[in-house]
Amino acid sequence: MTTDALVEGVHFRSEDAAELVARKALRVNLSDLAAKGARPFAYPLAAILPRRVDEAWLEAFASGLAADQKEFAVNLIGGDSTATPGPITLSITAFGHVASGRALLRSAARPGDLVFVSGSIGDAALGLAVLKGELSDLASEHAHHLKDRYWLPRPRPRLGQALIGLAHAAIDISDGLVADLGHIAETSGVAAEIRIDSLPLSPAAKAVLQQRPGLLERVLAGGDDYELLFTAPSESRQAVERLDAASGIAITLIGQIAAGEGVRVIDAEGRALALSTTGYRHF
Amino acid sequence: MTTDALVEGVHFRSEDAAELVARKALRVNLSDLAAKGARPFAYPLAAILPRRVDEAWLEAFASGLAADQKEFAVNLIGGDSTATPGPITLSITAFGHVASGRALLRSAARPGDLVFVSGSIGDAALGLAVLKGELSDLASEHAHHLKDRYWLPRPRPRLGQALIGLAHAAIDISDGLVADLGHIAETSGVAAEIRIDSLPLSPAAKAVLQQRPGLLERVLAGGDDYELLFTAPSESRQAVERLDAASGIAITLIGQIAAGEGVRVIDAEGRALALSTTGYRHF
Repeated sequence: MTTDALVEGVHFRSEDAAELVARKALRVNLSDLAAKGARPFAYPLAAILPRRVDEAWLEAFASGLAADQKEFAVNLIGGDSTATPGPITLSITAFGHVASGRALLRSAARPGDLVFVSGSIGDAALGLAVLKGELSDLASEHAHHLKDRYWLPRPRPRLGQALIGLAHAAIDISDGLVADLGHIAETSGVAAEIRIDSLPLSPAAKAVLQQRPGLLERVLAGGDDYELLFTAPSESRQAVERLDAASGIAITLIGQIAAGEGVRVIDAEGRALALSTTGYRHF
Repeated sequence: MTTDALVEGVHFRSEDAAELVARKALRVNLSDLAAKGARPFAYPLAAILPRRVDEAWLEAFASGLAADQKEFAVNLIGGDSTATPGPITLSITAFGHVASGRALLRSAARPGDLVFVSGSIGDAALGLAVLKGELSDLASEHAHHLKDRYWLPRPRPRLGQALIGLAHAAIDISDGLVADLGHIAETSGVAAEIRIDSLPLSPAAKAVLQQRPGLLERVLAGGDDYELLFTAPSESRQAVERLDAASGIAITLIGQIAAGEGVRVIDAEGRALALSTTGYRHF
């Protein structure tokens, strides 16, 4: 079971399409379940809405939920709706099945583990930069890709389920790659090291970083990726790489776990990066 | 399972004590479970808080939750915390156990059933009137009682569990007595009739109505009572009245169910009351 709330102006923008807001609200919860290796099946929704929300918004919102219920085989099983003098606020609690004692934990990384990540990193954070007008010179196909990844996370429930028995620790990246790896390191009592030149970047993210290398920190710490970050012993490496081929979702080896504490990010020259921020902070 | 969200300025006032806000947020959910005959055991909380909320508020909030966790034997099992540019918003999903197929439903009322209600009616709505300064001439002990009932609902989980096998339909009064009886009537496909002179009123509510009879509508339609409203066949009447003695919670016969539809409220002269509103509406 997981609970995640989305707030207009914090987790999505007022001008975002209602259909995408609905799907994002549901998907961030499905991503949490995926990180546990759970198969999602149901969710209640608390829809806390200002009076300005109209029939058309509600219809688009409902159609977004309907589309994702079909795609992920989950059902709305109740909830609450109430008015607010504030922003649109959506709180979902999602339920998933996982065999007793088999759920993936963030606290299960061990020294010697390899660190893997699914998909690509940084697209959502760069998509938000595009939407804020920071990257107006970007080619339109790249801009479109990045915005799409900001609006619509891709939770990985099937990959998460396939990782049971292979992975040690797992988490979904919501606070940012470095911050979420930090959660694994801290709760597992280990150190983690990742290499910049191993990070899976989309062609769009590569194009951005070529022009503006300073945005690398946004990629590492920006959050909203909703990819799976996990550790696995080196003897599982081949099996993990086979999942890559079977699932059609890229799985990339980006670092390793050692005894110690903290997260180190190593650049192409082997130097440790100093990061000014380690993840999105609400407070 | 039930989900209920509370919004500052809608369900509680900005100046309400954080400890009471916490307990109210939890208790409205426990009340929902009570109405199903379920024994509550756990809840996740989404705490959506503006930045102005400080350490002292959070501490008082946590101590309110801790007190009620002990009183009702429930545990916080996770959730989410996030910032909002808007009002304090609390969304709780609460879990309870009830034997499969035995949960009390609002749709199970049958013609011939008697209508009962626990505790007293209207105190919370009149308490809000006191807090708004509408009843400044009220004796202070009465004012205190009414405010207390607005701030702190008394969910009835043990009574709800005892009603399984005795009651047909049940609901907790959150929208208002008439509106919630309307929910039973509508979902059960029956008509309901209640008598004003049977309503259980606290000494404080009686004192208010003596001075200001026009506030009767607030008592009938005001909401926030969080008492159990239920129907039972006439042969269960004695068993229901024994619950009254055993639980120490007053249970009052206030009307009956018949074939037909809608809710009629009958005054002391036998006339049907015309109500301008049938319950609290958020939209």
